[in-house]
Amino acid sequence: MTLMTVRTGEDREERHRLTAFEGLAALSLDALSSVAYGPQAIVIVLAAAGAAALDYTLPVTIAITVLLAVLVFSYRQVIAAFPGGGGAYAVASKHLGRQASLVAAASLIVDYVLNAAVGVSAGVAALWSAFPPLYGGRVWLCLAVLALITGVNLWGVAESARVFIAPTVAFILAMAIVILGGLFRGHPDVLLQGQPLAQVTGTVGFLLLLKAFASGCSALTGVEAIANAVPEFKQPRAHRAQHTEMWLGILLGAMLIGISVLIRKFHLTPSATVTTLAQLTAAAVGKNVVFYAIQLITTILLALAANTSFGGLPVLASLLARDNNLPHLFSLKADRQVHRYGISVLAVFAAILLVVARGDTQALIPVFAIGVFVGFTLSQAGMVRHWHEQHGDGWLSRAVINGLGAVLTTAALAIELVSKFTEGAWLVIIVIPVLVLMFDRIHATYDRIGTLLELGKQPPPPQRRSSMVVVPVAAVSRLTAEAISTAVSIGDEVTAITVCYADPEDEAVDARFREQWEAWHPNVPLVTLHAEHRSLAPPIVGYLKQLEAEDPHDRLLVLIPEVRPLHWWQWILHNQRGSVLQRAIQRDTVNIVICRLRYQLATVSADQPASISNPPVTP
Amino acid sequence: MTLMTVRTGEDREERHRLTAFEGLAALSLDALSSVAYGPQAIVIVLAAAGAAALDYTLPVTIAITVLLAVLVFSYRQVIAAFPGGGGAYAVASKHLGRQASLVAAASLIVDYVLNAAVGVSAGVAALWSAFPPLYGGRVWLCLAVLALITGVNLWGVAESARVFIAPTVAFILAMAIVILGGLFRGHPDVLLQGQPLAQVTGTVGFLLLLKAFASGCSALTGVEAIANAVPEFKQPRAHRAQHTEMWLGILLGAMLIGISVLIRKFHLTPSATVTTLAQLTAAAVGKNVVFYAIQLITTILLALAANTSFGGLPVLASLLARDNNLPHLFSLKADRQVHRYGISVLAVFAAILLVVARGDTQALIPVFAIGVFVGFTLSQAGMVRHWHEQHGDGWLSRAVINGLGAVLTTAALAIELVSKFTEGAWLVIIVIPVLVLMFDRIHATYDRIGTLLELGKQPPPPQRRSSMVVVPVAAVSRLTAEAISTAVSIGDEVTAITVCYADPEDEAVDARFREQWEAWHPNVPLVTLHAEHRSLAPPIVGYLKQLEAEDPHDRLLVLIPEVRPLHWWQWILHNQRGSVLQRAIQRDTVNIVICRLRYQLATVSADQPASISNPPVTP
Repeated sequence: MTLMTVRTGEDREERHRLTAFEGLAALSLDALSSVAYGPQAIVIVLAAAGAAALDYTLPVTIAITVLLAVLVFSYRQVIAAFPGGGGAYAVASKHLGRQASLVAAASLIVDYVLNAAVGVSAGVAALWSAFPPLYGGRVWLCLAVLALITGVNLWGVAESARVFIAPTVAFILAMAIVILGGLFRGHPDVLLQGQPLAQVTGTVGFLLLLKAFASGCSALTGVEAIANAVPEFKQPRAHRAQHTEMWLGILLGAMLIGISVLIRKFHLTPSATVTTLAQLTAAAVGKNVVFYAIQLITTILLALAANTSFGGLPVLASLLARDNNLPHLFSLKADRQVHRYGISVLAVFAAILLVVARGDTQALIPVFAIGVFVGFTLSQAGMVRHWHEQHGDGWLSRAVINGLGAVLTTAALAIELVSKFTEGAWLVIIVIPVLVLMFDRIHATYDRIGTLLELGKQPPPPQRRSSMVVVPVAAVSRLTAEAISTAVSIGDEVTAITVCYADPEDEAVDARFREQWEAWHPNVPLVTLHAEHRSLAPPIVGYLKQLEAEDPHDRLLVLIPEVRPLHWWQWILHNQRGSVLQRAIQRDTVNIVICRLRYQLATVSADQPASISNPPVTP
Repeated sequence: MTLMTVRTGEDREERHRLTAFEGLAALSLDALSSVAYGPQAIVIVLAAAGAAALDYTLPVTIAITVLLAVLVFSYRQVIAAFPGGGGAYAVASKHLGRQASLVAAASLIVDYVLNAAVGVSAGVAALWSAFPPLYGGRVWLCLAVLALITGVNLWGVAESARVFIAPTVAFILAMAIVILGGLFRGHPDVLLQGQPLAQVTGTVGFLLLLKAFASGCSALTGVEAIANAVPEFKQPRAHRAQHTEMWLGILLGAMLIGISVLIRKFHLTPSATVTTLAQLTAAAVGKNVVFYAIQLITTILLALAANTSFGGLPVLASLLARDNNLPHLFSLKADRQVHRYGISVLAVFAAILLVVARGDTQALIPVFAIGVFVGFTLSQAGMVRHWHEQHGDGWLSRAVINGLGAVLTTAALAIELVSKFTEGAWLVIIVIPVLVLMFDRIHATYDRIGTLLELGKQPPPPQRRSSMVVVPVAAVSRLTAEAISTAVSIGDEVTAITVCYADPEDEAVDARFREQWEAWHPNVPLVTLHAEHRSLAPPIVGYLKQLEAEDPHDRLLVLIPEVRPLHWWQWILHNQRGSVLQRAIQRDTVNIVICRLRYQLATVSADQPASISNPPVTP
C-alpha cells in the first residue's frame, strides 16, 4: 500500500530516526501483511478450473516475485533520486505534469480507501478463521474494527513509526514458523480443507493464469512505502533506505514463494470460512495455542496496515487542498492535531466498501490492485523522465531499470483491467477520472474565486462607512442593556427590534415592554415587528432585508445578544434563539454582518458598580 | 388519549367549525381506535387463568363501560365549565395549583409519548395480522411508520380536524360490519385460533379480574379529547360538544360490549401473531378482501391516532416552555411553522419505547393507562373544586358527578398501579416525579437567570465604550479589504492578525503577505501569530484571551471574514474556517463579540467603482 508518512517537526531529531533494520520493521508492515490475502487470491482464481489448476500457484507466484524484484530495483532508484520522499504524487507532479499528478493522487485516494477496507476485512478474516462463530457477524466486526481505528485517529495519537516494529517482527517470526514448520512436516497436522474441487482435467486457460497473476499482484501493495519515507531514516538516509527496500523484497518474495510451495505440498483448496493462511498455519503447527496466537498477530498487523491509510489519506488530502484541488477544509486542523475531515471521509468510504463487499476481502482485491498499479506505473514513468532530464552518469542504465518497471507494471495493470473488469475494475475506471475531474473543477472554481477576490492585486484602501446596528431584544434587562451599550459603541446608528405576534397576550406583553423601554430611555428607537405566525426568524430577516435594500451603502450589522450559561449543562436553556437567527440571516441576506454577543451571568455583580458610574451615552 | 388541539388563527372562522356529527368523526378517532387493543388486553390477562377464565371478558367489559359512562357525564360537565377547552393541564392550573398542574403536564407528556408508540405498534399489528410474513420485521415497520409520521409533522402540514372524518367513519362502519356480521353468524367463518389454553378449573382470582379491568381501561384513552376541543365546534359550541361526547360514549361502549360478546361467542383465545380484532374480523366476514380492507382501515386509523400526539405534545411543551418549565427552545418555531424540538423529542422517545417493547402493543399498555388515569383524576378533582368555588345553581349535584368520576378514576388508577406495578407501572411512578422535578429545576434556574439579568428592573443607561476589532486575515484581497473597511467602520482600534506555522514554506508565504500588506498600507497593524502546530483556532483564541485579559473594559470584537459562495453547492469550498473559529472562540472566551462578515463574490464588480471613489481612512 502506498504509504505517505509525513511527520510533524518534533520527532525529526536524528536519534529518533530509523536504522535499516528498524526501518524494515516499521515500514514494511503494509507490504508484508499482504501475504495474508495475496496468495489466497491466486488460489481462489485457479480453483475455478479444478484441483489440478492449483498446481499453477507456484509458477504464478514466481512471476509475481519477478515483478517484485523489478519493483524493488526501481524503487531503490526512486530512493536515490528523491531523498526527500518520493510518492507517486510527488514524482508525477515534478516530472509528468499536473494532469498526471492528479491521476496519481486519485489512484492514491482510491488505494488508501481500499487499503483500509482490505486491511480491516482481512484482519477480521484472520479472527473468524480462528473463531468460526464470528463468521456470521463479520460485517459488524469489520465496522467495529474500522470504528475503533477511526476513533483512535480522530482522537489523535502522537504516533511514531517505532510502535509498528514489535508487531511486524512478531508477524515475520510467525510466518517463519508457519513456512519452516510446514516444509519440515511430512503431512499436514490439521487439515482445514475447503470444498472438494472437481477434478477437471481440461487445460488451464492462459486468461485464467493472467487473472491469477493479476489477483496475486495485490500481494505487492506496499512496496513503495519505504521510498516515501526516506527522511525517516538515520544518515546516510538513502543508503539505509535502499538496504531496507532490498530486504523487504527478499522477505516478501521468500514468504510468497514459501506459502505457495506449502499450498502445493498440502494440496490445499480454498475454503469460505477459513483463510488460506489459517489453513497453512493449522497444517504446519496444528490447531493449538500457537495457531491462535498467529491468527491474532495477523489480525493486529492487518489492522495496523489499515491504520496506515489514516495516516496517509488525510495528509494527501491536505496537500491537495493546499494546491486548491480539494476543498480547503481538508487542510484544516480544528482543535486536535488531526485532519478531521480527511479521516471522516476515509472512514465513511471504507465502511461503504466493507458493507457492499459484505466483509469479504477477496471481493475488494480486484479493485485494490488496480489503483496500486496506476501509482506504480506513474511513478516509474516519472523516473524514466527524471533520468532523461538529469542525463547524469549512467543515466541510461537507470532509465532502463525504471523503464522496465514501468513496462511491467503497465502490463500488469492492463492484465488486471482486462481480466477483472467485470469484478469491480470498472469501478476504478470510473472513479479515478471522476476524481480527477472533481479536482479540476474545484481548482477552476478556486481560481475563479481568487480572480474575483483579486488575490495578489492591491485592493482599494479601506474606507470608513457609516454603520447601522440592529439589535433584536425581548425585554428590558441587563442583557439588553449590555447589547445596546455594545451597539452604540460600534454603530453610528442603532435600532432595537422586537417581534410581537398576533395574539392578545403577546400584545399585552409587548405594550408592557414598550413602557419599560420608554422609562429606561436608552435613546435608541424600539421598532416592533408584527407577525401573524409564531415564528422567530422570518419577521427579523424580513426587516433586515428591507433595511439592506433601502440603503445598500451603509454597513449593516445585526447584534444578537444571548446569555452565556452559568454551567455547561445549561446550554439547553439558552442560545438556540441566537443560533436559529444566525442561520436564517446567513441564508437569506447577503451583506449583513452577524454579531453575537454573549453575556456572562456570573460577572454581573462584579461589573455592576463600574457600569453605573459611567455616564449615559447620547448616540 | 388526551388530545390537546390548538389551532392557529386562520381556520377559526365559523363556517370551518364542526357540527356535532363532524366533531364525533373528527375527534373520536383516538378513543374509538383503542378498541383495537383494549379488549385484547383483557383477553390476554384472563387467558393466564385458562380457557374458562375468558368467560369473564364480558363482565369486565361491562365494568369498564360503567366507568366510561361516568367519565362521559363528567366530561359533559367539563365542557360546560371550560368552553375554551379544558385539558387536564388547564383545569389543574386553574383549580389545583402549580404542583398539580405540573403533575398533569408530566402525565400528559408520558401519555403523548405512549399514545404515539401504542398507536404505531397497534397499527402495525393490524398489518401483520393480515400479512403474517411482516411479523418478523415488526420493529422496523413500527420505526418506519413512526419516521413517516415524524417526517410529515416536521415538514409541517396545514392540518384540519376534517381530514380525520373519512377514516373515522370508515372505521366505525368496519366495526359495525364485524360486530353485526359476527352476531348474525352461527359459527365462525375462519377461525384464526391462538395457542390452546389449559382447561384450568380453579377459581378465577379477584386480583386477576382487577388486572383485566386495569388493562381493559386502556380502551378509555381519548374520551377527554372532545372536552379539549370545544372551540372547534359551531355555535352553540358547548351544547354540540356535549352531544358529541355522549355519542362517543355510546359508540365506544357499544363497540366494547359487542366485541366482548363476540369473543365469548367464538371462544377466541389470544394469539401471538394475530390481533384479537383480526381474529374477530376473520370469524365474522371470512378471510377475504373485506378482511384485508378492515385491517388496512384499522392501521390507518391507529396511525392517525398516533399522529394526534404530534399535534398535542409540541403544543403542550411550548406552553410549558413559555411558563419557564421547559427550555425555551420548545417554544421556538424556527423556519417552518412547526415546533421542531417538541416533535423530535416525541419521536425519539416513542422510538425508544417501540424498540424496548419490541413493537408489542400489549407490553406498552400497562404503562399507557396509568398516565391517562392520572390526567382523568386530576381533571375530575379540579372540577369538584370548580363547582365548589362557583357555588352556582345545582352545584352540589354537579360536584357529585365529577366527584364520583374522581373517585372511580382514582380507584382505577390504584388498581392499575398495584396490579401492573411490575409490568411497567413502576416506570410511570418514576418518570412523572422526575419530570415534575425537572420542570421545577428549570423554572428555578430561569428565575435565577431572570434575577441575575434584573428582568423588569431598570438597568443602567447604555454607555459607549472604546471598541477594539481583531480581524483574522490570510492574504491581501478584496475580502480582506472589505473586512478591514468594516472593522474601521465599527471599531476605534483595529488589528489584523495572521497565523504562521513553523515551516519554511509557510514562513515564505507569510513574508510575502507582509510585504503586500505594507505595499497596500491600510493603516492597520498586522500581527503575525507564530504556531508550532498546523491548527487554526488555538493561536487565534490564545491571542484573543490575552487581549481580553489585558484590557477588560474595552469592547473586544473579532470580525471573521468569509466568502459567500456563488452557488449553494460551493459552501463546501468555503465557510468551514469561519465556523471552526466561531465555535472555538465561543467555547474558550467570555466576553468577546463574534462577528461574521460574508462577502458576496458576485457583487464585486458592481461595487468596485463606488468603493474606489471613497477616500482612504486613517484610523
